[in-house]
Amino acid sequence: MPTRCYSDVCMTEYAIGVDIGGTNLRAAAVTREGEMIDKISGTTNVAAGRDRVILDLVSNIRELLDRVGAEGFTGVGIGIPGFILLEKGMIVGSHNMPGFDNYPVRDDISQRLSSQVVLENDANAAALGESWIGAGKGVSDLVLLTLGTGIGGGIISRGKVMHGFVGMAGELGHITIMPYGNPCGCGNRGCLEKHASATAIESMANLMALGENVSARQVYELAMKGEERAKRIFESMGRALGLGLATLINIFNFPLYLLSGGVLPAWDFFAPGMFDEVNARSFTYKNTNTRIEKATLGNEAGLYGAAYLPFQAKQDK
Amino acid sequence: MPTRCYSDVCMTEYAIGVDIGGTNLRAAAVTREGEMIDKISGTTNVAAGRDRVILDLVSNIRELLDRVGAEGFTGVGIGIPGFILLEKGMIVGSHNMPGFDNYPVRDDISQRLSSQVVLENDANAAALGESWIGAGKGVSDLVLLTLGTGIGGGIISRGKVMHGFVGMAGELGHITIMPYGNPCGCGNRGCLEKHASATAIESMANLMALGENVSARQVYELAMKGEERAKRIFESMGRALGLGLATLINIFNFPLYLLSGGVLPAWDFFAPGMFDEVNARSFTYKNTNTRIEKATLGNEAGLYGAAYLPFQAKQDK
Repeated sequence: MPTRCYSDVCMTEYAIGVDIGGTNLRAAAVTREGEMIDKISGTTNVAAGRDRVILDLVSNIRELLDRVGAEGFTGVGIGIPGFILLEKGMIVGSHNMPGFDNYPVRDDISQRLSSQVVLENDANAAALGESWIGAGKGVSDLVLLTLGTGIGGGIISRGKVMHGFVGMAGELGHITIMPYGNPCGCGNRGCLEKHASATAIESMANLMALGENVSARQVYELAMKGEERAKRIFESMGRALGLGLATLINIFNFPLYLLSGGVLPAWDFFAPGMFDEVNARSFTYKNTNTRIEKATLGNEAGLYGAAYLPFQAKQDK
Repeated sequence: MPTRCYSDVCMTEYAIGVDIGGTNLRAAAVTREGEMIDKISGTTNVAAGRDRVILDLVSNIRELLDRVGAEGFTGVGIGIPGFILLEKGMIVGSHNMPGFDNYPVRDDISQRLSSQVVLENDANAAALGESWIGAGKGVSDLVLLTLGTGIGGGIISRGKVMHGFVGMAGELGHITIMPYGNPCGCGNRGCLEKHASATAIESMANLMALGENVSARQVYELAMKGEERAKRIFESMGRALGLGLATLINIFNFPLYLLSGGVLPAWDFFAPGMFDEVNARSFTYKNTNTRIEKATLGNEAGLYGAAYLPFQAKQDK
């Protein structure tokens, strides 16, 4: 275990990363070198309201702190599904975290724990995690796309999350890939996530008469069995993804674009169409060794990334 | 004039910015505070080959140096139409600068002048200029789109040009705005610049039977006279631009997006369609005070930006 020593006293430097969803709450103690030394999986009920969620958060973090010990503890990072007002330490526009808008949640938790607390959007935290010790280790500029119910995105530039001026950067699921494509809740049409997410796969399954309420998982299983319509769905999804990636590559010229999320196991079905589009549409891709690869930390990327935040904040001081 | 003083000796800190095109070459002496104190407009003939261009560059810079004086001279920045390999100080893939590929042009000029020389892509230099003392003064994160024959782009993040890993970032003219739009020389279809540049306006004039070889300028004059087809061309161009801007805004969440270039005078004709699309397609735009505005430095943006480069390089040391 990595240690930090002062004269004859040595201690392990570690931070606690937290990932909070609608019903689950995970917290992990991670060393400065990226080793996860302990982990808790708790529950919370976002529907029960803000106070309940904060109490659950704090008690889970305290339990982990008790187990690992105060020695070497650097701070807490929390990945949250919503936009973060960084300076204020508040969350805005989070449909998944009702009651949190305009509440000083960072300072509240910080006071209860007497600790530094850093908030981050969960997709950004996942991108940071992959960049720290995942598929992007050693790469300071990358994009992560999370292909789930929607499409989340995180941009790491010069080793840091790109936030934008009100913390809304990286809404990569809302790149327009076709002007009159499927409508999106954001008001736009043809958003990437309406053509390349698990939800998009399910809509296409319906359109292709694969049955009502067929899940993306089931479409994948049908594709595995050789069902042609299922395979074509993934081809369409892959081409849509390729359209979005080509635009990102032409904008950023980053060396690495990572994909993660529930759709990732279907890589073999969607990747050919994706690469075909990217090759045809991005001269930058064709003329450089730009990589599009699978992320490797799975659903722990956000935990690692959240834990990295206090280390990074300390470094910046 | 701003001065830098050591005990009883004072001197003006200034840098020389150079902007090089196919036949024209401009160089300006600009102080640390952004005041242009002298300027030269020279000629060069890119077709005459690399050695000729370098000689012309060096002699123009020397003339300016002679006029302003060596005192306070900080260095030279050069804006070039092409991709810059920053570490090597070379240009690649520049159709406009034949013979320069893989030649150590920065070090050559630097030795001839015994001076620090910084190279930058011309669109990036323009974005940096606007961010330094133009419409983006005081804004450290912005995007500049130059609407000319093509569409050039520059991204300024945390006060600096985003380069990407081989210097190809900011190819914003090659954002795909429609999957099966007009073909582009880059290999893609539906690139922003094939629907929103001066060249796109000219193609549309042809499609709308406004006459063959009608220039974008003439389409603008027709629109000014109330010609409906000309007005519809700018509406289409504005909507295409809005599509690209909505995607950029959703990706970056920057506070400012600037437009410049030859098409800018037609703002009143293309802006309504542009804002209409951005409003409909970007929830980030709709919910924040994101600004889309005219750049203010015109074709001197690149000169200012190029001059800023040696100051910035010095600061970073």
